[in-house]
Amino acid sequence: MPLPPPAQVGQSFSEIDTPALVLDLDAFERNLVTMAAYTQGHGVRLRPHAKTHKSPEIALRQIAHGAVGQCVQKVSEAEILVAGGVHDVLVSNEVAGAAKLDRLAQLARQARISVCVDHLDGVREATEAAARHDVVLDILVEIDVGGRRCGVAPGEAAVRIAEAVARSNTLRFGGLQAYHGTAQHMRSIDERSEAIERAGVSVRNTVERLTQAGLSCATIGGAGTGTYEIETGSGLWNEIQAGSYVFMDADYARNRQANGEPFRNFEHALFVLAGVMSKPVPDRAVVDAGHKAAAIDSGLPVPFRREGLVYSKPSDEHGVLTGDPIAVPHRGDRILLVPGHCDPTVNLHDWYVCVRGLHTADAHVEALWPIAARGALT
Amino acid sequence: MPLPPPAQVGQSFSEIDTPALVLDLDAFERNLVTMAAYTQGHGVRLRPHAKTHKSPEIALRQIAHGAVGQCVQKVSEAEILVAGGVHDVLVSNEVAGAAKLDRLAQLARQARISVCVDHLDGVREATEAAARHDVVLDILVEIDVGGRRCGVAPGEAAVRIAEAVARSNTLRFGGLQAYHGTAQHMRSIDERSEAIERAGVSVRNTVERLTQAGLSCATIGGAGTGTYEIETGSGLWNEIQAGSYVFMDADYARNRQANGEPFRNFEHALFVLAGVMSKPVPDRAVVDAGHKAAAIDSGLPVPFRREGLVYSKPSDEHGVLTGDPIAVPHRGDRILLVPGHCDPTVNLHDWYVCVRGLHTADAHVEALWPIAARGALT
Repeated sequence: MPLPPPAQVGQSFSEIDTPALVLDLDAFERNLVTMAAYTQGHGVRLRPHAKTHKSPEIALRQIAHGAVGQCVQKVSEAEILVAGGVHDVLVSNEVAGAAKLDRLAQLARQARISVCVDHLDGVREATEAAARHDVVLDILVEIDVGGRRCGVAPGEAAVRIAEAVARSNTLRFGGLQAYHGTAQHMRSIDERSEAIERAGVSVRNTVERLTQAGLSCATIGGAGTGTYEIETGSGLWNEIQAGSYVFMDADYARNRQANGEPFRNFEHALFVLAGVMSKPVPDRAVVDAGHKAAAIDSGLPVPFRREGLVYSKPSDEHGVLTGDPIAVPHRGDRILLVPGHCDPTVNLHDWYVCVRGLHTADAHVEALWPIAARGALT
Repeated sequence: MPLPPPAQVGQSFSEIDTPALVLDLDAFERNLVTMAAYTQGHGVRLRPHAKTHKSPEIALRQIAHGAVGQCVQKVSEAEILVAGGVHDVLVSNEVAGAAKLDRLAQLARQARISVCVDHLDGVREATEAAARHDVVLDILVEIDVGGRRCGVAPGEAAVRIAEAVARSNTLRFGGLQAYHGTAQHMRSIDERSEAIERAGVSVRNTVERLTQAGLSCATIGGAGTGTYEIETGSGLWNEIQAGSYVFMDADYARNRQANGEPFRNFEHALFVLAGVMSKPVPDRAVVDAGHKAAAIDSGLPVPFRREGLVYSKPSDEHGVLTGDPIAVPHRGDRILLVPGHCDPTVNLHDWYVCVRGLHTADAHVEALWPIAARGALT
């Protein structure tokens, strides 16, 4: 039984129950346009990451703006996107075991499905699953370009896996997955550029050896919201997998551009609306949004446009607001928090409360979008 | 549309999909018995906190073992418990605003409902909501006993609120809510004892003044898994609100008993079962459980009984296992992780996969319990 949404379409902003995940539709739509214009203007494909939004509603809007499909991390996310009308999904991740690969192969009867491998056992398992379901799976070989997470070493080791893919009669070698996760959140543009330049050396080296082996890469995929301009500028990557750009969280706002200013390519479009449940003393209020409403892995939520007010000491269902007594809101007041990290915050909620005119007197609920892949872990 | 469970009843342990939230039924049942025996043996009531488990299935088992009811933090949690057959629920928290209080008052038609207040506005709002629905709400006045979160100051300020409750013809003054959250996780018994002794001074002082005002406290509620023996020993508190004891997480295992040994009153009964998706190098494996499968607010998950293996560097859907190559599992292997903090970890999952004989060769799925109040935020 799904939980009821914390608002109804047509309600005014002040009628939304708290806590709620609020999407500023105006800012969100501008973010869609900004990224679409950038990628189209620079001749790279955009395959946004659905691990951020977990919503076919948002996926289809990205595709309507020119995205070629979606990335996901989980088979269950792919299932929900395909059921929601997305026809091209890349699992930008390794998938281990026959049970999960069978589900993926079944899905390939309805949509174009790609998946990453970094080991010969993965090639074998994917080959067998595709054969069992009489489908072809597209395969990207993931190379470790510096994140030290998954991925085979660049160069010869990657070529050996690509050759095994190419030999399989149920797999199609599609190219390389070359994503550098830790580079996304390096604060200075110099650090990010250096990391992606080093990644580029690995990509170029691997592509050259693949070419010598007679294999060409239709896709070099990677990049996130923190580095997509660098990968694009390299001329190596041709498919951008950014996800957070649609929402823009507090952590990405701590990145710096070349001029030292905060990263501002996109607008904050996602908020946790919290309500004040207690103001026991003049300089402290307690809101109804804690760990179960906003993730803290990349820093605490930040009060939006509330100078002198700090959110701190979250517990499971509480957050503490402190500041000058004049800045601290009162019992019954409501406050917008910018999540520290959008992806795991979205995953805590069941509904996007989509608000038109959020920062205006006419703010109202225009739509409710289910976060259909919330909790899709397998 | 609820997500399908990652297992089926009757399957063997090895057939559970990953990641999954696994409940060791044997350890869980022993934890139920241990706490029931302690509280009954010491003449205090047990009202376990459902913010930990979010499940009527578990609530009803606690009540069958003698618990007087349940605590929750949210109105929506109360709604789900009452719908699941729980007849006595305390919202151990302030509830602000007519909309939420109306829902609570409606619920009081079906169950005994108590709620906390720490402000005269809360008394007024609760009075009005109860009147609108022709019910009586039980009220605990929350005092700040050192946690510096919600709660009115002990002493006269609390008495003024209690008097307002007593004057209301739709509210019943039930006593004090005196929970010290930060004390739960102080590592040494001396620190915890000192914090709860100081809290006891506030409780005693407030009770005396209430008595002078002609008000008696049927309930002095509080305590958690980290301190329940101290509150019980004080002779002041008479209703214990521990929640985590049913599961016992890695953070509580870092508390120390009087003899310096780790806190071991309860057994680890809750695990995240993770699968290895990649082992790119001999001393590093990557599992499919990251921030969206295990909360990190109280420390990272800990591999269970795997000497020399460390879980680190979680990202949204990945965790990294490092250690001696012999200790590091292989692609396709599975590993049990003890969550750092059980409450927000449970809230990431839709199902308890209840396993009988977990650490035996006969481990199998005996039941699947929905985490019915997962995501119940409002």
